[in-house]
Amino acid sequence: MHSSLTPAALRRRIRAGEHTGNTSGCAPGFVQCNIVILPQEWAHDFLRFCQANPKPCPLLAVSAAAGDTALPLLGDIDIRSDVPRYRVFRNGAFEEERADLHALWQPDLVTFALGCSFSFEEALLADGLDVRNVSEGVNVPMYRSSLPCTAAGPFAGNMVVSMRPMRAADAIRAIQICTRFPAVHGAPVHLGDPSLIGIADLHHPDYGDAVTIAEDELPVFWACGVTPQVALEQAKPPLAITHSPGCMLVTDLRNSQLAVL
Amino acid sequence: MHSSLTPAALRRRIRAGEHTGNTSGCAPGFVQCNIVILPQEWAHDFLRFCQANPKPCPLLAVSAAAGDTALPLLGDIDIRSDVPRYRVFRNGAFEEERADLHALWQPDLVTFALGCSFSFEEALLADGLDVRNVSEGVNVPMYRSSLPCTAAGPFAGNMVVSMRPMRAADAIRAIQICTRFPAVHGAPVHLGDPSLIGIADLHHPDYGDAVTIAEDELPVFWACGVTPQVALEQAKPPLAITHSPGCMLVTDLRNSQLAVL
Repeated sequence: MHSSLTPAALRRRIRAGEHTGNTSGCAPGFVQCNIVILPQEWAHDFLRFCQANPKPCPLLAVSAAAGDTALPLLGDIDIRSDVPRYRVFRNGAFEEERADLHALWQPDLVTFALGCSFSFEEALLADGLDVRNVSEGVNVPMYRSSLPCTAAGPFAGNMVVSMRPMRAADAIRAIQICTRFPAVHGAPVHLGDPSLIGIADLHHPDYGDAVTIAEDELPVFWACGVTPQVALEQAKPPLAITHSPGCMLVTDLRNSQLAVL
Repeated sequence: MHSSLTPAALRRRIRAGEHTGNTSGCAPGFVQCNIVILPQEWAHDFLRFCQANPKPCPLLAVSAAAGDTALPLLGDIDIRSDVPRYRVFRNGAFEEERADLHALWQPDLVTFALGCSFSFEEALLADGLDVRNVSEGVNVPMYRSSLPCTAAGPFAGNMVVSMRPMRAADAIRAIQICTRFPAVHGAPVHLGDPSLIGIADLHHPDYGDAVTIAEDELPVFWACGVTPQVALEQAKPPLAITHSPGCMLVTDLRNSQLAVL
């Protein structure tokens, strides 16, 4: 888990190929990011898509210029090597996983770093709330909802949502806590009846793992960073690269620095 | 409705017996208060009860000394005459309604002014949310819940809650808005399944009027200022005086001044 490493030390291990897996629980207190890399020709519309859909796509940093491999706002980063595992999509379809991007890098690529739920989960846990996917040691369940995103050029689609079951009083507290963190998905987008947002069966998530939901709990739904993948499927850019689920970019930003109050 | 009168002008009309009814919609923008008046011997425990139960009993002002009829923090007030209608309880049981307290006043009486839901309803309406009891022109439905208050001396009992139905996204927004106003009941205490807090039938409130609940709405429950009346029934002080429901003390404080952020 390398939970005692600083973000910079952990990135050096990742860059050296010594850490190639999940970053959940690594470098506690520090922001981890979803990554989307696109050719410059597609970058402006994707940036507009993030701007128009800040709950699923909270943009924390963008390359200063096409081809830049650094993201200085987030730390001393080489985006070609500092994510443990990448996914490559061609024309919207998954092609392969890669450990680094040295062979694939092009001078027209633009990198987008988006906030991730690890940051708000840490704030919920610090408040004593049970985060079911954490306490059950699985990936959070995620669902394709019927909540539409605002389209931007070719980027469009419905929102993917993550779900954490909670008793009502804890759900209210979670709304208060997450409201402080708009840069990492912010307050939930729905709670209660899943059919109202187009989810037929909570026990069969579209991504991640099912979790236990107790009789006295409500499902609480957050906008999810997998949403851009649905938009990429729809837009079908010739090349798109993302992090592999759970294998995030670990940054030098502190989660507490993202709190708006 | 006298909605164009300043709080001070409205209180002068009330003091003169020219306004003896509901204050809902009067002096918009200004805080209205629930009132509890008790003999000094009971005041310390009641103050502790409010301190221990700030959501149902958010204390905004207390008499400086027994027998004082002024509440200078809230305006130029004579508490014997500035509430449109009072209720008198003897040994915990309702005895009568009165238009003023001149004949009843005793030098040992202590006045407590508590925040009221009118303040947060104004904030919800200002954000464009539908507040069902307002849009249907009735009193908010209130229920005796199974949520226990923290006891203080003889004062004890369960929380009374008010209910406003909302779609989930509006409920989430309402939680954010009401979180800014801890002095007027703050964030909701429950939402969803009413049986989890001991409410058998939403269509038969214990106080106030039933409201329409749509298929796609959740009931959202707030701690309610009627809770002290339940505690008074339990404590059975020889004399207790409250405002009559809906006939509040109108103060010079602005609702916006109660926002903690």
